Order: sequence, then C-alpha cells, then structure tokens
Amino acid sequence: MIIEAAKQLADRDMAPYFKSMDEQPARYDGKGGVITHPQLRTIIRNSAEQGWIGGAATLEHGGLQLPMMVFNTGHHIFNAANNGAIGYLGLTAGSAALINSFGNQAQHDLFVQKMYAGEWQGTMALTEPQAGSSLSDITTSAKPLADGFYKIKGQKIFISGGQHEVCENFVHLTLARIEGAPAGVKGISLFIIPKFWPNENGRLTDNDVFCAGDFQKLGQRGYATTHLVFGDKDSCKGWLVGEPHKGLNYMFQMMNEARISVGMGAASVAMAAYLAALDYASERPQGRLASEKDPLKPPTLIINHPDVQRMLLTQKAIVEGGLSLAMECNLQFDLAHAASGDAQQDAWLLLEILTPIIKAYGSEQANRSAALAIQTLGGYGYTMDFPVQQQYRDLKIFTLYEGTTGIQSLDLLGRKVPMEKGKALSLLVSRIKDTITKAYTQNAFQAQASLLETEVNRINEVLSHLGRFAATGDIDRYLADATVFMEMISYTVIGWQWLKQAVAAQEQLQKEAFQPQTKSFYEGIIHTARFYFRYELPHAEACAKTLLNPEYLTNLKKENW
Amino acid sequence: MIIEAAKQLADRDMAPYFKSMDEQPARYDGKGGVITHPQLRTIIRNSAEQGWIGGAATLEHGGLQLPMMVFNTGHHIFNAANNGAIGYLGLTAGSAALINSFGNQAQHDLFVQKMYAGEWQGTMALTEPQAGSSLSDITTSAKPLADGFYKIKGQKIFISGGQHEVCENFVHLTLARIEGAPAGVKGISLFIIPKFWPNENGRLTDNDVFCAGDFQKLGQRGYATTHLVFGDKDSCKGWLVGEPHKGLNYMFQMMNEARISVGMGAASVAMAAYLAALDYASERPQGRLASEKDPLKPPTLIINHPDVQRMLLTQKAIVEGGLSLAMECNLQFDLAHAASGDAQQDAWLLLEILTPIIKAYGSEQANRSAALAIQTLGGYGYTMDFPVQQQYRDLKIFTLYEGTTGIQSLDLLGRKVPMEKGKALSLLVSRIKDTITKAYTQNAFQAQASLLETEVNRINEVLSHLGRFAATGDIDRYLADATVFMEMISYTVIGWQWLKQAVAAQEQLQKEAFQPQTKSFYEGIIHTARFYFRYELPHAEACAKTLLNPEYLTNLKKENW
Repeated sequence: MIIEAAKQLADRDMAPYFKSMDEQPARYDGKGGVITHPQLRTIIRNSAEQGWIGGAATLEHGGLQLPMMVFNTGHHIFNAANNGAIGYLGLTAGSAALINSFGNQAQHDLFVQKMYAGEWQGTMALTEPQAGSSLSDITTSAKPLADGFYKIKGQKIFISGGQHEVCENFVHLTLARIEGAPAGVKGISLFIIPKFWPNENGRLTDNDVFCAGDFQKLGQRGYATTHLVFGDKDSCKGWLVGEPHKGLNYMFQMMNEARISVGMGAASVAMAAYLAALDYASERPQGRLASEKDPLKPPTLIINHPDVQRMLLTQKAIVEGGLSLAMECNLQFDLAHAASGDAQQDAWLLLEILTPIIKAYGSEQANRSAALAIQTLGGYGYTMDFPVQQQYRDLKIFTLYEGTTGIQSLDLLGRKVPMEKGKALSLLVSRIKDTITKAYTQNAFQAQASLLETEVNRINEVLSHLGRFAATGDIDRYLADATVFMEMISYTVIGWQWLKQAVAAQEQLQKEAFQPQTKSFYEGIIHTARFYFRYELPHAEACAKTLLNPEYLTNLKKENW
Repeated sequence: MIIEAAKQLADRDMAPYFKSMDEQPARYDGKGGVITHPQLRTIIRNSAEQGWIGGAATLEHGGLQLPMMVFNTGHHIFNAANNGAIGYLGLTAGSAALINSFGNQAQHDLFVQKMYAGEWQGTMALTEPQAGSSLSDITTSAKPLADGFYKIKGQKIFISGGQHEVCENFVHLTLARIEGAPAGVKGISLFIIPKFWPNENGRLTDNDVFCAGDFQKLGQRGYATTHLVFGDKDSCKGWLVGEPHKGLNYMFQMMNEARISVGMGAASVAMAAYLAALDYASERPQGRLASEKDPLKPPTLIINHPDVQRMLLTQKAIVEGGLSLAMECNLQFDLAHAASGDAQQDAWLLLEILTPIIKAYGSEQANRSAALAIQTLGGYGYTMDFPVQQQYRDLKIFTLYEGTTGIQSLDLLGRKVPMEKGKALSLLVSRIKDTITKAYTQNAFQAQASLLETEVNRINEVLSHLGRFAATGDIDRYLADATVFMEMISYTVIGWQWLKQAVAAQEQLQKEAFQPQTKSFYEGIIHTARFYFRYELPHAEACAKTLLNPEYLTNLKKENW
C-alpha cells in the first residue's frame, strides 16, 4: 500500500516535472535566495504529508517506523521519476536523523517536527572552498558564548538544498572547529545552524546565514547547489550537537546512509533511462538482421538486433544488480537496528563493508548504463526530445556526492577491509560462499557458481599480495590501486547478487504453476544473470591482473606529463 | 609552419568562443533558417583563407596538397579548441572531396571553389526519419527530368551544418533513389542538391530545399543539426554524381574519411578535457597522502594522490593512444594515395581495417576519459564554471556520428576481417608483430612485448571460434558479439601503438644527449606505455572470455524484459 502510494505520488507530482525542472534550473536571485521550480512546493508538501521525509524515524521521533527497505523503495521510485526534486527530501530526512540520534530533546523538539512537515529544509554543510573532500582541513570556527551556544564563522560550498524560497527556514547541520580544538578530523564538531532562530512564540529571528551564490551544473539543475556564508555580520549562532570534537563521527552516520541512498539513487535514475531505452527499442523498426538479405522485407524492431540486446541487457544487469545490492544494504540496515546479538553485529559489519561498494558501483556503472541508453536510441538519444540525455547529465554527480569513487575506494581498502581484523570482509565472503554452495545444488548454475568461487578466492589472493605492503608500513602503495580493487570486488559482489537472484528464481520456477507473467519475470532474471556472468564478471580478473602486477608504477613526475 | 598557423588560428578565433557557442546554441529561426553564433562567420572565413577546408585537395582541385597527416593535425588542434565550430569546416571539406572524386568537371567548377572559400557550406544528407542507420531503407526519390537533372522529393534528418545564415549557399550531397532503382543499398544514388542553383551570371535561384526545424542537443550546441525537406513545392532539382546506383559506394569514401576524423576528433576533445584536468590537479592543494598522519602539514597538490595519478594516466593513455592510432590512419591514408604497388595496396588494406577501430575506440574511450576529467576536478568538474562538463556533453555524439559503435563493430567483423580472404587483418597482425619483435630486442619492454604477443594470438583464437559459426552460415551468431570483439581488438591495437611509441622513445633516449625537456617527454611516454599495459590491456582478455564462452545467449524474449 505504501509503495503503491509512492508510485502514485511520483506519477502525479514528480515525473511530469522532470524535464521542466531541468529547463528552469534553480537559480540565485542575487540577494541571498534561490528561486526554484514552482512545482517544488507541491512536491515537498505532498511528500512530507505521506511520510517520505520522516517515515523511517521511530514513532517517538515523530516518524512511521518504516523499515529502510520500504522507505528507500519509495525513494527509488522518486529518484527514477525526478531525481533532482527528491534530493530536497532526502537531505532533510538525513539531517533530522542526525538530530534524533545525537542531539538532545530540546533540539529535537525545536527542529525535527518542522523538518518532517517539509516546512523547514535540512542540509549537510561540510565542504569548504579550500578543503574540498579533505574534511581534515575545514576552518569554519565556533567560539563558545556565555549562553551555551557558539558563535560561528566560515564558508561552505556545494551545499545542496541551500536557501530557497519554498521552505521558511533552513537547518544546516554544519561541521566546524571549536576554538582550541585539535587539528585534523579529531577537532571537528557538529552544529545545528538554522537560518532563523525560532523564539518562544514561534517567531523567526535572522541568524546571519547568507547564501552568497549558487552553482549552475551539468545536471540535477532543479536541485539548488549553494554557497553559504556563516557569520558575515558576526552574529551567527550555532548549537552544538552531542559532544565536542565528535562531529565527524556523528556526520558519518548520515554520510553512510546517504552513501547507500546515492548508490541506490543512481541505479534508480539509470533504471529510468533503461526503461526509456527499452520502450524505444521495442517500438522502433530499423534495419534487418545480418542473415536477412532481402531489402524488401520489412525492417525489424531494433530490440531484435543482437547489439541492441547486448546494450539493453547490460543496462538491466547494472540497474537491477545495483538495486539488488542496495536492497541488501537496506536489509542489513534494518537488521542492524532491529536484530540483536550476533545477528545485529553481523548486519552492522556487512553494512559497513557494503556501503562504499554500493556507492561506487551504483554511481559509476549507472553512468555507463545511461550512456548505453543514449546509444540505444541512436541520434535521437542525443537530442533534448528524449529524457536519456538528462538522466545521463544528472547521473554524473552521483560519482562525486558523499565522497568520490576514489574516496569510497580508500574507505573500502583502508578502513573496511582491515576493520575488526578483517571480520567484515570474512563475513561478506562467507555470505557469498553460502550462495555459491546453494547454486552448486542446482544444475542450471554450476558454471556460474564456479566462476564466482574463483573470483571470491581471488579477493584473498589480491589482499595477501597487497597486504605485504601494508605489513611493511608502505601504506601509500597498499592503497595506490584502491579504486581498481573496488572495481574488482564490485564485479564479484554484483555477481553474488545475480547468482542469488537466479537461484531464487529457479527455485520458484521449480516450485509452482505460474501465471505466464510471473514465469516470464523469473526467466528474465535467469537470462540476465547468465548474461552478467558471461559479459561482466570476466573484468574482475582483469582488475586482479592489474592489482597483482609486480611492477610498481610510482607517480609520474611533474616534468613528464 | 602550417601547424603553428593552425595553433594561432585556434587560439585566436576558436578556443575563446568554445563556451559561448555552447551557451548560445544554433537555433531554428522558425522560417527556414538557423541562427548561429556571431563568431562562426569569422571562424569559417579565416579557416578557409588558411586552407583548412580545401587544404588536403590536390592543386588541380584547388587545394594545397597537404598530406592528411598535416591537414588532420590542424583539425586536431581545432577540435581541441572548439569542436562544435570545426564541424562546419570538415563537412564542407568532405562534401567537396566527394565532388572532386566522383563528380564531373562541370560540377567541380560550379561548386568546389565556393566551398573551399567557405562561402558555401557542404553537407552530407543521408539519414531519414523512418530509416535511421539503415540506409537500405531510404525513400528520398529522384525522377529523371528532360534536362538531365533529377526531380528530388524527400526528407532528411540530423543534417549537420544544415542551412544557417553564415553561408550564402548550401551544397547537400544527398542519397536518393532513382525511380525504378533496385531495392536496398544497391539502388541508392548520390546527388548534389544545392539550396540555390547558381546561374550563368552567378545569381542564385531557389531550389526548394527547406529547413523545417532543428534538433537541440546534449552537446555540440553551436553546431546546427537540421531537418531538411527537399521538393515540398515539387521544384527541387538534383544533379547526379557519377553513375546511378553507386551512391553508397561513393558516399563511403567520405564516410571513411569522416570516421577517421570522428575518432581523431573525439581523442582531440578528450585531450582538451585531460589538459584541463591536468592543470587543475597541478594547482589545487587538497588532502594528504595516506602515509602522512600529521594534519598540521600543508595539504599536497591533488596530482600527488595515487588515484588522481591513475585517473590522469588513464586519460593520457586514452587520448595519446587514440591520437597515435589516428595518425597511423592518416599515414596509411597518405600512403594509399601517394605510394604505389604493394605499398599502396597494403596501406589501403590497413586503412580499411583500422578505420572502424579508430572510430569506435576513439569515441567510446574519449567519453570515458572526459568522465575521468570531471572526476579529477571533483565537484567543480560538475559545474558550468569549468570546460570539462561541456567536453563530456560534446563527446557523447562521437559514438553516434557516422555509424554507431555497433555499426563500426559489424563493419569490422562482418566486412573488414573477412575482406580479401583476411588479408587486411593478416597485415595488421604482421605489423603488430614487427613492433613486438623490435620490442623484444630492448630489455625495458620484454614484459610488454610478451603481453602484446599473447593478445595478438588471442585475436586468431577468437576468430577461429567465431569462424565456425560463419562457416555453417550462422551469420547472426558470428556477428552477435561484434562490439565485444571490437573492444578486445581495440585494446590490443592501442597496446601496439603504445609499444611502438615506447620503443621509439627508448631508442631516442639511448641515442643522444638531450635537453632535459625532451628527455622528460620521452620518459613520460614510456611511463604511460607501462601504465597502459598494466591497467588497460588486461581487459582484452576479459573480452576474449566473453567471446569464447561456449554458451549462446539467444535474445531475451519480449515478455522476459
């Protein structure tokens, strides 16, 4: 029922405005505000009403206690319908979740209800002009005041959802340094910095947060990206969340959830592009098969050309494989919150190691998938008359949001692989092996099970090769090819998802008599899984060859470029 | 001197307008014309004056007899500077070359001089709304008239350089069917259809060619893409070029040259994006190496991060590898025209087989390269403030122009590999083996020579596997994975180019005492070649695994999607 409501909301309020929100981008008004598309107000209000901002929060926090598997399925539909619009909601949801988790009751009471109602917009204010991805170098300062608040001064860039005219207030979850704090990431604290402070009677008082401009972008043009200045008039006040110097740890809760959302969101946008390509290919007659020499025969639908099938199956393998992994993450998220004991600990560990993978694979491959969607349409795909070019533009930001692919890869190889003595990785490997064992019992997937087993073993081979550098303290060399490692393990992990799906589909087909439609659905899954193992998985070994190469290519020197 | 002049022209007239030609796209005026950027007139006029339209033609044809290696090096620079602008010139050059090659003296005299002067624009009018890539299905008709001309009726879409206000006349090299012609590609003839017919005194008379609209596009927005209607008032006259029904053969001369230009052009645009990324990475300090734990140390330039190096080296490997192959094609083109006997025949065969490869590799990998350029800049790369997002948008059309990647792959595996009993392929393989033999004599590249040898042998292994299907007449299966074959052979052919470059660089380094700058240049080539063999080449084997897989995945049925 909930998913169906999401579908209706997306069809009515979001999808019809996908194109026009791109054509009328959010833009700076020259005096501190951002003007957005007229439909945005409706989208935010109606989504909030149906619980798509606060729905995943507990009842005590004013939410609906929706499992993340349900909440994010709604957002999957919204992302496919209008990814630029949906960011506003996700950001507010994430900011409020941070307050719920680490803030105090007073903070919750003052801000969260308004945020869940869509009246106030939440943002994540991390990036600074001089620091970029290097949060260690942020300089926004916080000076303790007598009343327990902090005086804030600094600038933040690339702040999505900035300060626009649809919401009456903005709650910026901001990283800053308390005066005298240690250098680096251990001296970063988290603050709530509203645009306006609400006083007792609900009146809003200006808090000296100025929007100094915006960024016009390749895609997601309906989604405001702003430059914020805190304390230009020396009168910006922030409220510390939790304890001092723990801001980055807190922020990482939001960041980790956001990373799953970005990976899943990218697969969702690519899904929309894939479906547009599939529609086109199923309706457009053009050319004949190579075996058909008679030019008087009518042209065939382009979906019948093997290369078009290859392009569509690649898209299907990427988007459905990516969504499958995203749902695995959502499941582990729910278990990490709802299970107990070992099951909870296992879920948490799996979530930790899968998060950078869904973020990196989801976003990188979604871009490749959308490029194939354009290619499927041919010249028409390049014109503004079809949505695939917009999805292609929109998707490029997903490889940058919440940490670039390079950052995700360092997180994976540098933190998640070694964490708890390798326990997260062992757990992942054992889950993959469970699927392999199950697949070996089915005649249909012996070959695929064997291929996946080889790839799983390769992970350890590569890690023991790389581990020798880490063991001798050469951490730079250990991490040098982290992105190639990410690529390799991603192919294997998505192979796992496809084998899991194929095994389940096969079980269903053996079990019961079906509606023809259901049977076709399972057959499509099995076909795509076979496709994945034949066309995609072999590249895992190629990545391993790079990683195992004994030659060490040190950096190219300045004069050699 | 000529290249230096091209550089100055690009710096002065083209590069400064790269961004504004995108921001003020060519657009239909609603009444038959297209309005382009004000700078276009200057670009066309000054380029024509310096010989960048007709320069490659013979002296008799009014050209400068520039070797294609020189002419296309000029166009390489122009493409890097402003790829949307340069299309206008290349198109006129190609159209005029068609007239020179297959037209008669009268046709040459009437049109070519004006075209080389940049006063008249040439176009290629092939694609029709209902036929797309399937030229076999074009329906534009040509009815013989008493005066020897033909009466033309039909519509063409995606006509680049359409009918804009900068040129006073347009010479559309158009494919049409003479009434009663055989069906399919064997009934297609080539016509000159000017927008205006010049009469004896030079006056121009309207020829009923109407521009009915344009296409707004993802990129190359300064380059007009139009929809043309011939003979709406029943008074459009065309002039047959050469013999009836040989139009497609003629057009393929232009098409083949255009395919090399597209592949080289894509590498050129990606080169510009790469250089923008290299500049940014060399100036932007951010973060520290993993081994540097002290947050008080100043941030390092991002070019010092291994993953940024990997991204930049991948770009360098792609763009310089692609340009190297493009220059190989230009060389073979020149030899095919200037050499004689076996040398000429060999050059022609090599050109035949390399043309689809440079087109497909150049365009597909240039897109990947530009995505990495955006990624190198991080969030800034996604903003309109930097050129890389425009290059990324512009580049997507290169995988569609002059035959999609799928079409190139069918051409390679279906026509070029079997042509003359496999002689073109044997010749290519023997050239690659010559380079391998040479590389084995140098200690520095034994490993790379051996890797390349394995890949060259794999081509034959794959072909003998696929050949079995062709031998039994299952041509659809033989060609089903043509694009994967293209990908595989491309990695190997670019590996050949890099090994060739590395061997040459090493020879130079052994030979002489150098200026430090020259030494650094050669070292950079060797480093990039090593990088290519380590990071890129292994994917050739992955493609082979797909191709050699014994399982045959027939098309997914309609109900299974």
